[in-house]
Amino acid sequence: MTRTIGVALLGLGNVGGGVVKLLDDNAAAIRARLGAAIEIRAIVVRDPAKLDRVIEIDRTRLTTDLDSVVKRADIDVVCELIGGTTLAKEAVLSAIAAGKHVVTANKALLAEHGAEIFAAADQAQVEVYYEAAVCGGVPIIRVLREGLASDRVESLTGIVNGTSNYILTTMTETRRPFADILADAQKLGYAEADPTLDVGGGDAAHKLAILIGLVFGRVDVTKIPTDGIDVVDPIDLEYADKFGYVIKPLVIARDRGELVEARVHPTLIPRNWLLADVAGAKNAVYVQSYALGPSMYYGAGAGMLPTAMSVVSDLIELGRNMAARAAGAGRAHRESTVQREVMPLADVRTRYYLRFGVADEPGVLGRLMTILGAHQVSIAQVVQDTSGGATGPVWVIVLTHEAREGEVRAALSEIDKLPVVREKARLIRIAS
Amino acid sequence: MTRTIGVALLGLGNVGGGVVKLLDDNAAAIRARLGAAIEIRAIVVRDPAKLDRVIEIDRTRLTTDLDSVVKRADIDVVCELIGGTTLAKEAVLSAIAAGKHVVTANKALLAEHGAEIFAAADQAQVEVYYEAAVCGGVPIIRVLREGLASDRVESLTGIVNGTSNYILTTMTETRRPFADILADAQKLGYAEADPTLDVGGGDAAHKLAILIGLVFGRVDVTKIPTDGIDVVDPIDLEYADKFGYVIKPLVIARDRGELVEARVHPTLIPRNWLLADVAGAKNAVYVQSYALGPSMYYGAGAGMLPTAMSVVSDLIELGRNMAARAAGAGRAHRESTVQREVMPLADVRTRYYLRFGVADEPGVLGRLMTILGAHQVSIAQVVQDTSGGATGPVWVIVLTHEAREGEVRAALSEIDKLPVVREKARLIRIAS
Repeated sequence: MTRTIGVALLGLGNVGGGVVKLLDDNAAAIRARLGAAIEIRAIVVRDPAKLDRVIEIDRTRLTTDLDSVVKRADIDVVCELIGGTTLAKEAVLSAIAAGKHVVTANKALLAEHGAEIFAAADQAQVEVYYEAAVCGGVPIIRVLREGLASDRVESLTGIVNGTSNYILTTMTETRRPFADILADAQKLGYAEADPTLDVGGGDAAHKLAILIGLVFGRVDVTKIPTDGIDVVDPIDLEYADKFGYVIKPLVIARDRGELVEARVHPTLIPRNWLLADVAGAKNAVYVQSYALGPSMYYGAGAGMLPTAMSVVSDLIELGRNMAARAAGAGRAHRESTVQREVMPLADVRTRYYLRFGVADEPGVLGRLMTILGAHQVSIAQVVQDTSGGATGPVWVIVLTHEAREGEVRAALSEIDKLPVVREKARLIRIAS
Repeated sequence: MTRTIGVALLGLGNVGGGVVKLLDDNAAAIRARLGAAIEIRAIVVRDPAKLDRVIEIDRTRLTTDLDSVVKRADIDVVCELIGGTTLAKEAVLSAIAAGKHVVTANKALLAEHGAEIFAAADQAQVEVYYEAAVCGGVPIIRVLREGLASDRVESLTGIVNGTSNYILTTMTETRRPFADILADAQKLGYAEADPTLDVGGGDAAHKLAILIGLVFGRVDVTKIPTDGIDVVDPIDLEYADKFGYVIKPLVIARDRGELVEARVHPTLIPRNWLLADVAGAKNAVYVQSYALGPSMYYGAGAGMLPTAMSVVSDLIELGRNMAARAAGAGRAHRESTVQREVMPLADVRTRYYLRFGVADEPGVLGRLMTILGAHQVSIAQVVQDTSGGATGPVWVIVLTHEAREGEVRAALSEIDKLPVVREKARLIRIAS
């Protein structure tokens, strides 16, 4: 007799619809591999009467009764696709308390309440899977957990927010300003009405916190220094290009022994890096590890089918692990409970692109250089661009060698006070 | 009480040494995850007295007695790292017959004798794992089997032979001829004394056959059209560059319904493709699938630790699956037994870069175009380069639109017979 794994879907939006479709399409293959069938036994929605669903669905399975569903005896796995951190958190915790395994695509939930959720899972001895929470369809969680199971990750560099990457890519191609491209992206449905979480870096910080939790230990997501992509002007893309760089919305994490260096910001990267060609809304994570060296994982970071595909792959693996555990194997994955501190931004050492808008007067360049030098910020390249004409400021572009961010900031605040300064200094970090 | 999984290593070269090291380094983490320890209980070597091993090893575990080891009751998994297809095949088949699971890094063995080995595994109900056989440390097998478990792959395009990629990358950077770079690579140990399997495409064809077996069904590796990279001259790299392309040693597979299109050859790809930046000895596989769309997996295709890392990750997963099966789950992976036919090269439709060396006479270009046209080969771009001076031939470079290879070949053999032709036509395919 074939065992059946009972699943409750919380939410039936795009991703939920995709999950139903892929499970239907792959039912036979799944049964063959698992020696078990995966059956969706309940779907919790807000309005069961709503007609225009993304897919045809047996309406008898629809319910609004979240509380009972997550505790039902015939449900083994609760698949949380509600989003947000209020109702979703309650639902996930009560599913765990009822001994259900959880699959979720909710990055905010895991980044902000991961410690609580994983501790509850430890206590209840259930599994929490979340491939779809980071980089949509790219199997980066599975790669870090299993593909590199016997390796030791040293650093991660990723493009994990599709909206930011789409906007910066389009800015690079068209040299039009941020606000214009964002407005277009909103019209086309590529950006949310409230784009703050995407373009401000908050979404990327959530995903970075989850990745760090997998490889270095848990960090407080609110401590991750986070800049949005709105600091980038088209003129910065032009100068970056002249120096051989492109600007990409990166997340960066490195194990620094005592501390974890973690940051989210637009970054100049050399044009010949693989990440430089990750264009449009695509995502990628570049991993540096002890045994494998560099490796990279690239693909669709969002979208109905890519995300649903990750959820279904999680359900399949969970099915196997339920069988393994029935035979006495340990849990497939225990999240690290080690709490790590994030390196303060002032202590980060990296290279910087600095753009100063100054008056066209003799001696200005010398004064900038003197102040930077006094703060141990050493200069790799300087360009003074007077092509702006008599009206605009003269742009001075400085690429620094590696310097401590605290010193760079101190120098900039001194420079910003100079009477010859027409526009506050712009700072964009360079990958190093 | 912790269960222990007994492993026999066949071979203690670089990869075997790496496996011993990584298992030692990760023993505690592995035990926690598996609820079981992985213990190497025997290592089969040719000469147990040999002293300069890659690692320190407890010599009491060394033995030459392959036949007994693969049948020993305390061995659960046989890890084949001998290479070749004779002794390795015997060892793997007798391990399977004795009910042992197998982990192997041997691509030639699986490409040439996979059908027999997987059939034997089916009969004995054991698992065969081979992450290290394709792209070394890049977890491409795991990604295709599990990460994309609920997806449907449509095509694969990969750089899977590090030596060929290293040589073409270096030729591109230095514009020195193939034979020079190969000689250097051999001196540096980057290429084998007999480089045929690498630069001739045979190794890549083995890996392609294994990947196709995972996603489309089994093919006869000897039927895969295979060209080596030695057809590429520095001058072709220059012309490719002028047209906006780079030349990469690709494997290509596409499901064409009745047939599988599969081929191995150097290929012109647009400079802005991600694969264009996969340089040196690195490997990458670009996958097009129904749900996820395009995705790419990049990293070290060879080397002691990357390959060993894949082997150990296989051992860890196998450990979990042994537990799952003890609980009545099906086998984790059953290889497809569907036999597929490879599309004959003459029926392949793609774009072509053609280079003709002709006499500097009026009307020559017209005759080439007429013959190509008569064979339904339509032209996208033509360049006639007379810069070679009075002595050399005039180069005519043609980029075609998509055409049937049979027609292209027929046109070329007609053209090669023309009295104005000074050098036989050179053909390199363009990715499309």
